[in-house]
Amino acid sequence: MTQLGVVVTGIAPVNTDWVNQLKAFGVATVHEALGRTGLMNANMRPAFVGASMAGRAITALLQPGDNWMLHVAAEQIEPGDVVVAACTSPCSDGMFGDLLATSYQARGCAGLVIDAGVRDVQTLQGMPFAVFSTAIHSKGTVKATLGSVNVPVVCAGALVNPGDVVVADVDGVVVVPARELEQTVSRCQIRADAEVAKRKRLASGELGLDLYNMRPTLQAAGLRYLPLGKTANTHPN
Amino acid sequence: MTQLGVVVTGIAPVNTDWVNQLKAFGVATVHEALGRTGLMNANMRPAFVGASMAGRAITALLQPGDNWMLHVAAEQIEPGDVVVAACTSPCSDGMFGDLLATSYQARGCAGLVIDAGVRDVQTLQGMPFAVFSTAIHSKGTVKATLGSVNVPVVCAGALVNPGDVVVADVDGVVVVPARELEQTVSRCQIRADAEVAKRKRLASGELGLDLYNMRPTLQAAGLRYLPLGKTANTHPN
Amino acid sequence: MTQLGVVVTGIAPVNTDWVNQLKAFGVATVHEALGRTGLMNANMRPAFVGASMAGRAITALLQPGDNWMLHVAAEQIEPGDVVVAACTSPCSDGMFGDLLATSYQARGCAGLVIDAGVRDVQTLQGMPFAVFSTAIHSKGTVKATLGSVNVPVVCAGALVNPGDVVVADVDGVVVVPARELEQTVSRCQIRADAEVAKRKRLASGELGLDLYNMRPTLQAAGLRYLPLGKTANTHPN
Amino acid sequence: MTQLGVVVTGIAPVNTDWVNQLKAFGVATVHEALGRTGLMNANMRPAFVGASMAGRAITALLQPGDNWMLHVAAEQIEPGDVVVAACTSPCSDGMFGDLLATSYQARGCAGLVIDAGVRDVQTLQGMPFAVFSTAIHSKGTVKATLGSVNVPVVCAGALVNPGDVVVADVDGVVVVPARELEQTVSRCQIRADAEVAKRKRLASGELGLDLYNMRPTLQAAGLRYLPLGKTANTHPN
Amino acid sequence: MTQLGVVVTGIAPVNTDWVNQLKAFGVATVHEALGRTGLMNANMRPAFVGASMAGRAITALLQPGDNWMLHVAAEQIEPGDVVVAACTSPCSDGMFGDLLATSYQARGCAGLVIDAGVRDVQTLQGMPFAVFSTAIHSKGTVKATLGSVNVPVVCAGALVNPGDVVVADVDGVVVVPARELEQTVSRCQIRADAEVAKRKRLASGELGLDLYNMRPTLQAAGLRYLPLGKTANTHPN
Amino acid sequence: MTQLGVVVTGIAPVNTDWVNQLKAFGVATVHEALGRTGLMNANMRPAFVGASMAGRAITALLQPGDNWMLHVAAEQIEPGDVVVAACTSPCSDGMFGDLLATSYQARGCAGLVIDAGVRDVQTLQGMPFAVFSTAIHSKGTVKATLGSVNVPVVCAGALVNPGDVVVADVDGVVVVPARELEQTVSRCQIRADAEVAKRKRLASGELGLDLYNMRPTLQAAGLRYLPLGKTANTHPN
Repeated sequence: MTQLGVVVTGIAPVNTDWVNQLKAFGVATVHEALGRTGLMNANMRPAFVGASMAGRAITALLQPGDNWMLHVAAEQIEPGDVVVAACTSPCSDGMFGDLLATSYQARGCAGLVIDAGVRDVQTLQGMPFAVFSTAIHSKGTVKATLGSVNVPVVCAGALVNPGDVVVADVDGVVVVPARELEQTVSRCQIRADAEVAKRKRLASGELGLDLYNMRPTLQAAGLRYLPLGKTANTHPN
Repeated sequence: MTQLGVVVTGIAPVNTDWVNQLKAFGVATVHEALGRTGLMNANMRPAFVGASMAGRAITALLQPGDNWMLHVAAEQIEPGDVVVAACTSPCSDGMFGDLLATSYQARGCAGLVIDAGVRDVQTLQGMPFAVFSTAIHSKGTVKATLGSVNVPVVCAGALVNPGDVVVADVDGVVVVPARELEQTVSRCQIRADAEVAKRKRLASGELGLDLYNMRPTLQAAGLRYLPLGKTANTHPN
Repeated sequence: MTQLGVVVTGIAPVNTDWVNQLKAFGVATVHEALGRTGLMNANMRPAFVGASMAGRAITALLQPGDNWMLHVAAEQIEPGDVVVAACTSPCSDGMFGDLLATSYQARGCAGLVIDAGVRDVQTLQGMPFAVFSTAIHSKGTVKATLGSVNVPVVCAGALVNPGDVVVADVDGVVVVPARELEQTVSRCQIRADAEVAKRKRLASGELGLDLYNMRPTLQAAGLRYLPLGKTANTHPN
Repeated sequence: MTQLGVVVTGIAPVNTDWVNQLKAFGVATVHEALGRTGLMNANMRPAFVGASMAGRAITALLQPGDNWMLHVAAEQIEPGDVVVAACTSPCSDGMFGDLLATSYQARGCAGLVIDAGVRDVQTLQGMPFAVFSTAIHSKGTVKATLGSVNVPVVCAGALVNPGDVVVADVDGVVVVPARELEQTVSRCQIRADAEVAKRKRLASGELGLDLYNMRPTLQAAGLRYLPLGKTANTHPN
Repeated sequence: MTQLGVVVTGIAPVNTDWVNQLKAFGVATVHEALGRTGLMNANMRPAFVGASMAGRAITALLQPGDNWMLHVAAEQIEPGDVVVAACTSPCSDGMFGDLLATSYQARGCAGLVIDAGVRDVQTLQGMPFAVFSTAIHSKGTVKATLGSVNVPVVCAGALVNPGDVVVADVDGVVVVPARELEQTVSRCQIRADAEVAKRKRLASGELGLDLYNMRPTLQAAGLRYLPLGKTANTHPN
Repeated sequence: MTQLGVVVTGIAPVNTDWVNQLKAFGVATVHEALGRTGLMNANMRPAFVGASMAGRAITALLQPGDNWMLHVAAEQIEPGDVVVAACTSPCSDGMFGDLLATSYQARGCAGLVIDAGVRDVQTLQGMPFAVFSTAIHSKGTVKATLGSVNVPVVCAGALVNPGDVVVADVDGVVVVPARELEQTVSRCQIRADAEVAKRKRLASGELGLDLYNMRPTLQAAGLRYLPLGKTANTHPN
């Protein structure tokens, strides 16, 4: 079971080149390359316009109203890491602000993903230090009860193991399992390449109906085209 | 009843000059001109800052997790149209992204209003292709089950018939019934004209209490003015 | 009990220098200086990017769907005041728009905090007239039923007495009781001063674990550091 | 457009035998018979355990915080009717209580469906008078602003025309268009008959996989069966 | 400002006869007698069917995830009291269960109103110990950070001062200010008496339109009665 | 990564005696015995009053609006199992009804936990077949897109591996990792035994303050007791 009161050390490093490529592909493409898995809930949003990040996940499991483990996590950050913080129960308190951001940035941290609130958002944007959160709120927190660092967590509906790679941009946050990293990069490239040609054809006016050869399937499914007059008495609403 | 599996064709065109005028008046004014009807719910928001649109509605009724009908709808788009998409049950999946936007834009589409999620938001903003949605999420969708195109839909709480005119800006999204279009433009103009004078008087410091002659009505309703000391023991909270 | 149908007059003025200092310190710092009290709920957000304000609170208690008391409140505004509006039941209607904003601005009003919706947001941003709200919606309202002005209200979960000072920025909205104003300014200054040194040390790479001397407490609480291999069979999830 | 300030009279009667049959079939079956359309949102729930109803819809469009039109609607009720009430914007106020229920019951009303709050729930249960609502709340309402009676309304996400038939039980609320009534009853009967045999076979241990002949389709879609050991390194999460 | 870390003692007793009368009148009637003020939000619900209570409020302000102050509050309970607990930020944890209920019941406590979660609900129902909460959840809490007892709190949107009287039943929870107690009882009686006659007339089939003499006002407001055929082309939706 | 399109077979059996003991202890006690981990979100509720269950988890990962995998899961059920179903994105559709319940019951299934909607609730209650869900809704679903069976899923915020034990009652749903089963039973017994004595002392009027020896800690934390009069000017709210 998920243990409280532990800090797991020795998380394996990840290939930063692959991480950078995933960031460039963007969340929507990475999510598709993962077979449409690994996505956090839609309420996980950038704390300011333009925030984006990718990096190895250092995980933190926090108690509600208590950000103690975010300090413990700081020591585990290596350059390029992203901290992913979940709470043991729903919490919108401002768990993270400009002082912790200063500390994280000094450690080379690439950003924070937190299923809770953050504050000092204007300062975060100015640094800039990328943050994705489920709330923006000033509510202060205590440092009284142990959680854990680098245990598996469920953050905004997605399972994150320490050492996984997290990619975040305006389209959301997605988690790439460590051992799927290389394969995911390859799949992203294949998908991106395929989209270049599709985009060109669609831009020229060709319809997806033809590009994807949907017409026979739609017809087989029973789709009917009816002129407006003919339908007047079949959908009176 | 609302039929599934049909595409209704032959939707009547609308006067584009009136559509453009409605866009210029803005959603709040159009809503007032409609007698305060026709507004979508408050959770229907622009996908990026600055998005706005107006156009004839091509409607799509989608199954949850399935964006097939958005491809079918593409073929029904004529220049200036807005696609209005509803789901048969609540869904926040990313139903629409940059490839569909490329296709819609090639057809001259003025924008999308969707009671579901969208993705590739940065690309949409760059095109720009105006989108209003109830979520931003990368979650991919399938193309497996028929919905309908150009049937009446309830989108974010508002009834939209194909051929109605939809106006969308930062204040929300409003639906103008096709046959009320001309009258609504006229009423917007009357309202906008009346507001010029009111704005001037209010800017000079005149109170709405006097401008709208509210004092007698307030007095009749029993409004009392009490100096702070006198109320101390009547509202102890 | 909270009375309906009254306008309380003679609210005591506040020291505007202190108000300006609170605005400069920002909501997160003021909230801490207040002993972590006085914060509105996290769904109270700026209506446009960059909105911020501070001022003496003129309160309004509104009926749902009815903005009559916002007109009555206008007459009570003195330069620098903030209007804080609550509803007797939840409401997302567009209670406030550009005409009222013009009137309020003419009275020297510093901004509006409203637990309801607002509209004409693009115009508000252009003026600019700072607004914090729990919704953006065009829905129009009537002027039919009395509420009150300058009675204590609960706005977005926070108690606001007329004459309190309200501070609002991207981190949320906080209420400073009138009699705590001077003390709060002092405490903010102490906190801000202390943070300068902390920020410097954290920026240099010193950990909060050491800066705040957390290690002994964490150890006493039982925190354990485990290398990854050792934990494999204790947290199988 | 939906008009405010009108009461439409002369709504056509419905066949009460068909209505009673629909009530007996239940909401889930009726919804299927309608081709999976016409359902209200999932937050429309019975106000007390055991409430159920079916009847011709008398519609009411209410202003937020104002139940005036529920009194106007009373006069339009004929024995067996259901009143369906929507609001022009979201509202959880207690729009309906035991006095109105007494009046409605005296008119032979079969129940109320309201996208707002109700109160006096213990009394309603005792009468019993069936109510489905989106909230239970004591908040009182005024009688100040016109809405309409017997205009088309969107109630909890579903379009309801006056004269449609509404069926409500623990599974939710569904709307049957007036002209689809007979056909829907027939389809319900066919569906119910078919389910008898299915239920028997499933109860005997036969799997849906076989009863519905799903195995070939699943195989064609690529479903694979893997013993636990073989999958250990493909889904490390 | 609301102080943390204090227990205020010496709260004035209330007239238990009046409290019992308020409980008998019920929440909806008390709320009306209070001029439609003092009601908690609609998400404050009984933890089990049939729970109801009334009593003098002992207030507790809790930190999120921390129920320490509920133990401190226990000592302040006198027979007939209700404990009203708010949190400094939103929390759904199971703050209260059967052990605390046993202790509270031993002190003569009439029930608990808590803007958070509770657990052991089956046991609470069996005792029975009346509880109203905004969640049911098993999540355990710590005892680490001070809140306060018997300070004013905002609980589910309503201000509660220690010594106020709280009334709770299926229709919600309402707060009666201590000094308004006698007056509220009187007003409830007047209202209840008036309703007897009204209920009788409504039960006999008389309409509220006539009982409350609404017809002239409705006509003055412009209400129009239109036979169905006449409106066909004015509200095409 | 979580794979779609697979059915994992050969899930290890669990000790049914331990499962039965966990059910008897109840969710709140099991959650505490697990060190306060493993709990699903508070919106996972029994579909009818009195539902409870415990059993080995057969997991299903469903696509939104598509219940195909619930049929595939049926074949994997062994007597006493609980099916735990998650969706790849939020969905409130009625994924499960009386026919599937009949089939599951015929297989000896102990119940269903589903992060989606269910229907035919009255029939489920009559069987009875225990169901916990996040919605009750009639909305029908298709059988078109593969998910998986017996892969790890995140259900209502909790990670569930196939073979884990799930316990559900009115206090919520908790997940016990397979390898922690015996230890959790032991810890529950210890906790339950300890509570007998505590309950007795609390019932006799002893305070938790003394039973748990909280007074010194509270004093050290700075808790102050103030008579009402002394605090009048320190908490003006």
